[in-house]
Amino acid sequence: MTAPSAVKAALTTQSIETPSWAYGNSGTRFKVFAQQGVPRTPREKLDDAAQVHRFTGVAPTVALHIPWDTVDDYAGLAAYAGDLGLRLGAINSNVFQDDDYKLGSVTHPDAAVRRKALDHLLACVDIMDATGSRDLKLWFSDGTNYPGQDDIRLRQDRLAEALAAVYERLGDDQRMLLEYKFFEPAFYTTDVPDWGTAYAHCLKLGPKAQVVVDTGHHAPGTNIEFIVALLLREGKLGGFDFNSRFYADDDLMVGAADPFQLFRIMYEVVRGGGFTSDVAFMLDQCHNIEAKIPAIIRSVMNVQEATAKALLVDAAALAAAQTSGDVLGANAVLMDAYNTDVRPLLAELRQEQGLDPDPMGAYARSGWAERIVADRQGGQQAGWGA
Amino acid sequence: MTAPSAVKAALTTQSIETPSWAYGNSGTRFKVFAQQGVPRTPREKLDDAAQVHRFTGVAPTVALHIPWDTVDDYAGLAAYAGDLGLRLGAINSNVFQDDDYKLGSVTHPDAAVRRKALDHLLACVDIMDATGSRDLKLWFSDGTNYPGQDDIRLRQDRLAEALAAVYERLGDDQRMLLEYKFFEPAFYTTDVPDWGTAYAHCLKLGPKAQVVVDTGHHAPGTNIEFIVALLLREGKLGGFDFNSRFYADDDLMVGAADPFQLFRIMYEVVRGGGFTSDVAFMLDQCHNIEAKIPAIIRSVMNVQEATAKALLVDAAALAAAQTSGDVLGANAVLMDAYNTDVRPLLAELRQEQGLDPDPMGAYARSGWAERIVADRQGGQQAGWGA
Amino acid sequence: MTAPSAVKAALTTQSIETPSWAYGNSGTRFKVFAQQGVPRTPREKLDDAAQVHRFTGVAPTVALHIPWDTVDDYAGLAAYAGDLGLRLGAINSNVFQDDDYKLGSVTHPDAAVRRKALDHLLACVDIMDATGSRDLKLWFSDGTNYPGQDDIRLRQDRLAEALAAVYERLGDDQRMLLEYKFFEPAFYTTDVPDWGTAYAHCLKLGPKAQVVVDTGHHAPGTNIEFIVALLLREGKLGGFDFNSRFYADDDLMVGAADPFQLFRIMYEVVRGGGFTSDVAFMLDQCHNIEAKIPAIIRSVMNVQEATAKALLVDAAALAAAQTSGDVLGANAVLMDAYNTDVRPLLAELRQEQGLDPDPMGAYARSGWAERIVADRQGGQQAGWGA
Amino acid sequence: MTAPSAVKAALTTQSIETPSWAYGNSGTRFKVFAQQGVPRTPREKLDDAAQVHRFTGVAPTVALHIPWDTVDDYAGLAAYAGDLGLRLGAINSNVFQDDDYKLGSVTHPDAAVRRKALDHLLACVDIMDATGSRDLKLWFSDGTNYPGQDDIRLRQDRLAEALAAVYERLGDDQRMLLEYKFFEPAFYTTDVPDWGTAYAHCLKLGPKAQVVVDTGHHAPGTNIEFIVALLLREGKLGGFDFNSRFYADDDLMVGAADPFQLFRIMYEVVRGGGFTSDVAFMLDQCHNIEAKIPAIIRSVMNVQEATAKALLVDAAALAAAQTSGDVLGANAVLMDAYNTDVRPLLAELRQEQGLDPDPMGAYARSGWAERIVADRQGGQQAGWGA
Repeated sequence: MTAPSAVKAALTTQSIETPSWAYGNSGTRFKVFAQQGVPRTPREKLDDAAQVHRFTGVAPTVALHIPWDTVDDYAGLAAYAGDLGLRLGAINSNVFQDDDYKLGSVTHPDAAVRRKALDHLLACVDIMDATGSRDLKLWFSDGTNYPGQDDIRLRQDRLAEALAAVYERLGDDQRMLLEYKFFEPAFYTTDVPDWGTAYAHCLKLGPKAQVVVDTGHHAPGTNIEFIVALLLREGKLGGFDFNSRFYADDDLMVGAADPFQLFRIMYEVVRGGGFTSDVAFMLDQCHNIEAKIPAIIRSVMNVQEATAKALLVDAAALAAAQTSGDVLGANAVLMDAYNTDVRPLLAELRQEQGLDPDPMGAYARSGWAERIVADRQGGQQAGWGA
Repeated sequence: MTAPSAVKAALTTQSIETPSWAYGNSGTRFKVFAQQGVPRTPREKLDDAAQVHRFTGVAPTVALHIPWDTVDDYAGLAAYAGDLGLRLGAINSNVFQDDDYKLGSVTHPDAAVRRKALDHLLACVDIMDATGSRDLKLWFSDGTNYPGQDDIRLRQDRLAEALAAVYERLGDDQRMLLEYKFFEPAFYTTDVPDWGTAYAHCLKLGPKAQVVVDTGHHAPGTNIEFIVALLLREGKLGGFDFNSRFYADDDLMVGAADPFQLFRIMYEVVRGGGFTSDVAFMLDQCHNIEAKIPAIIRSVMNVQEATAKALLVDAAALAAAQTSGDVLGANAVLMDAYNTDVRPLLAELRQEQGLDPDPMGAYARSGWAERIVADRQGGQQAGWGA
Repeated sequence: MTAPSAVKAALTTQSIETPSWAYGNSGTRFKVFAQQGVPRTPREKLDDAAQVHRFTGVAPTVALHIPWDTVDDYAGLAAYAGDLGLRLGAINSNVFQDDDYKLGSVTHPDAAVRRKALDHLLACVDIMDATGSRDLKLWFSDGTNYPGQDDIRLRQDRLAEALAAVYERLGDDQRMLLEYKFFEPAFYTTDVPDWGTAYAHCLKLGPKAQVVVDTGHHAPGTNIEFIVALLLREGKLGGFDFNSRFYADDDLMVGAADPFQLFRIMYEVVRGGGFTSDVAFMLDQCHNIEAKIPAIIRSVMNVQEATAKALLVDAAALAAAQTSGDVLGANAVLMDAYNTDVRPLLAELRQEQGLDPDPMGAYARSGWAERIVADRQGGQQAGWGA
Repeated sequence: MTAPSAVKAALTTQSIETPSWAYGNSGTRFKVFAQQGVPRTPREKLDDAAQVHRFTGVAPTVALHIPWDTVDDYAGLAAYAGDLGLRLGAINSNVFQDDDYKLGSVTHPDAAVRRKALDHLLACVDIMDATGSRDLKLWFSDGTNYPGQDDIRLRQDRLAEALAAVYERLGDDQRMLLEYKFFEPAFYTTDVPDWGTAYAHCLKLGPKAQVVVDTGHHAPGTNIEFIVALLLREGKLGGFDFNSRFYADDDLMVGAADPFQLFRIMYEVVRGGGFTSDVAFMLDQCHNIEAKIPAIIRSVMNVQEATAKALLVDAAALAAAQTSGDVLGANAVLMDAYNTDVRPLLAELRQEQGLDPDPMGAYARSGWAERIVADRQGGQQAGWGA
């Protein structure tokens, strides 16, 4: 296996972006269970994100969601983040919560609604200019619930038109990351349901358009690492929205449902050069019943552990076994890395970086959880609706 | 095929229960799109349900959901229903929306929460006494999101204890219908995830405990009509929560996603004697983007059309083909009924009953939709939260 | 709805290709149940295919599978087909049954195996030259069973190389149809697992490379008609391998498992112009337990019925409802066509064409089934292995 | 976590049964790739099984499949096994490969076929008497491919009748293990498709009828460990057929596809008392492309490693976290055990038992693989058909 020192060196180059909305309340259609101490403002979300970075050392950026994180002064927000040792990350657009979007946003049959949605997307690029964000993340809930409800092909035409307009608006150092999702909230067709659809659009748009893989957005049984390998081969993997699931888009903590899958994904990232390129590692999760900050710390650690195992894989031994058709041997090389307990190596790395070797314990001991419960009284807790 | 007159005669014995909550607003975790004219009170829900019954003639009962339909005077509500030509149907309990239920209700690790949940269930039986409802429908969102979160087996023990207490409380003519669901809102384990679990509990409880089949609550690919046939054979099919889906628990209009499946289900109901026994035919749907009353009329018609086709099946010809091992012949007998356009027969039946042959058109022409939009101004629209 | 005369006129332009191998024995890994009267030679397969065309009038071409249909004289086989009123259709390659292909064919780690596989593909084009076939259908069973077994990306490189060599060899009027499949016989990765992968390769190859949609080759819940609409929009839908399934690649008779899905697919074909272009309508099924010839007649009829319903859709009414955002109205336009019993219309069409209105009955009365059982004694029955 | 010494002590009590057929050839419906050195007789299968036990120390029993392992003298075969340090394990019946079983065995519409199938099952009990086997494993491929093909309910009646006859025949110390399977080779209905059906039959039969869980036989997303916990609570878990899968019944090496799932299953076994009761741990796998003996050794090791991790779980800490509703804490207790690298502990255990710490390496060095290739020339290799 790769030398621990090399693994540690590589790990120091990784950063994992946390999403502002994961610090707020979330839930299912049945119930949102509010938690005590949840942030009320974008700045308070950054305060919490700073704790995650403080104890993990690898979460320096925070994704924003517009309008949930709308502020008057984005430069001011960026400066606030900077004071906390953070940077603002991807801007996530929202064209699914206005009443006008009941039947779609950029694919809506009504041109006026499409225009409104497009204007929002363009406004998000304005915000990127202000925050210095590189990535615009586009997720469209657009789709239909019933056969015949709308014309599948026309909706693709409308989608292509909107994407082209946004692409045109991007600055030289900006990208658009197009997310696909199998289903929900649309229950018959979704206008960008799979990687193929996202890829086809991005290909026509150009190099600044890239596909983002949300690990919970696939049909049952889909081999996600295969998609990752393909997109890297095509130069079209923009990044990840990490989370995990047993069923649908469960949005559980990444690595919680299938840690072996996460390892296989990270292995393909490493093998395809994605670890040293512009692939964005982002979390996109819902902590419906567990405490949010420690859940995010745990998630960051899970990505880090999977990455460490992927880096451990003995590439030469693997290639040799593969080339010779040694099925069991090749599998064993991969499993040898996976079965290794990398927690000691990561503890060591943290200590070398001046961090507590035990981020979960250190956070628990820090008193932050108690402090925000005490301090954040009154006001409107952040959630998906605000 | 069966003679049309016999089919029509059988159809006159069917009744399909509509759920009070389908008249109110619903949505996904991403957005609830409110609709104009939606009821604000249980009585207004009944007013709408009366329209469905007026135009279809087969929807005389309405299920209530507690606490969404909580009123001071249930006897008064029942009388109000009676004046509209309706009866109150199943009582649906809700032990998933109180903050205490974050980690479960009757399976919660804390005995105090379990007690609270049980008290609610018992209170629902009190309401049944007042409304004259026969059925208590029990759906538990209880489950866990993460491996290890709670003890699977202890939760079964707690569930069994609560069910026994409710069963004990039932009157002689009352039943409890236990619903199962594959997942959501719990994303790792669900305490009643499949028909086998519901069946095992009901078996131990006794004859008043029956399984309810929600057509959207199964793993991908599950053969629902097989379950229906089995439960009827065991005398344990209490009823249906009808809806349809392409993916998960999409709660689309019944018959919209897979009309052939609905036909196969109704065929097994007919074949297993469920059509002439106590099996309850209930809708449980979400009309997130379509107009609610016509969607419910359409759904009732879809069930009726599937039933008519199922009744058309030539039982003797089918049995003969099956017995002789004629695969294509037996399949053809079934398909012959399915491929028949039963809409003329149903139009005829409605005319014989003094109804408009075209329920959708008649409702549209009735002016009710416009009237409720005009009349129901102000107040709090009904939805899942109230 | 569209006028019946227009529907009938359109239907006369459709032809449905039957596969030679469906006339032979097939089964599962557990057992192949041989049937009496099964063909022993490619000519006997054509004899049976001629019966299907004789009674349906819409199945004039027969796909070959190499080496299962290897003959010394392909021109002679084509002439034999011609004498039966048939033409030879697509050539299906087979690079999955030689012992060398245990770990892959064109993606195998060993260059010698890759070369052997490529040579077979090129030889298939030679056969196309001899038979006058337009289409080379490529299905690769290539993939891996275990994580790490082989390098996902290198296998894509090898695949691209082989496809380019075959593409180069194609004549001006020849096409290659690349098939994708979710899984089986590979159980971890499949090298062409989804439409996106097939599309990406075909796009790079050029206009003669087209994607073929096997209706049984998708992940659970996949919206196949969406893929059809997309591929038509991209000009990349080469054709269909029709069959149906409840679970995996069950290869049941097309239309047997979900006739509504087949209708939706055919609607997108019609709507996207695929019905009047070069889209090939092929069957690819296994009649493991049912009599083969009548099963194929039934399948052809199922495709025809779904097509008739798709043609019936009132396009103007649908567009109007879609444009105005009338969810229920638009769905109703589609369902109105689907719920129509088109069997009388098809019977009428057949009579106008001088055919028996009842193909199944006419075949049964023809005595062919009894004749082949009596005549085809001895010899080696055709199957997947020969 | 549990003390290593206690874990090791518990592990010494585990035994894992290997199936005779896994030593022979297997494949998919597309191709069976024969391997060199594969056994030709039941005795040669035992010879290979002895190697697995020799290097792992935990695989002392071998399951037989009738008629694949039919011999004249079962007592002689048992003695041969004894000489190798093995015992004969479960008897697996086969009522799916005779031509008569095309439409079913014990559920066939024809009473004569049912009788034939039942006679085979009873004959298997005779064999158990001769071999001293405790368990009769019953898997029925029975089902239908097309809606209407046969009557679902009558097939249950016929199944119940056959099971009762077999149950009656069992000796005091014999059990019948009823296996369920979601689908394949039947593609519409399967007569025992899920644990609920198997449970319902076993419950009526009595204590000697138990359910067997094949880990590859579930609908996508099914929570297998939940079923394990339930069956243990009901006293109805007879054993496991271990294997793993990404898609359907892939029959890959157990632990290869989802090692975390295997750990969760073993955790529920330990927690539910199954580890110290009569639960049979059996493998049921297909080594289609990998070398068979080392694949079986690897599989045995995978079960052992998952068991070791399950035994490591700190039960007291887990219960404390669960009781207090500490979601993240409870999950962490479980994950702590899973993330532990137990390979050193198992190596230590093997050394304490006088075994090589590295079973895979030791087997490779033993020369057995080369020897059987050299020795087993000619004859008919064992496979599923013989």
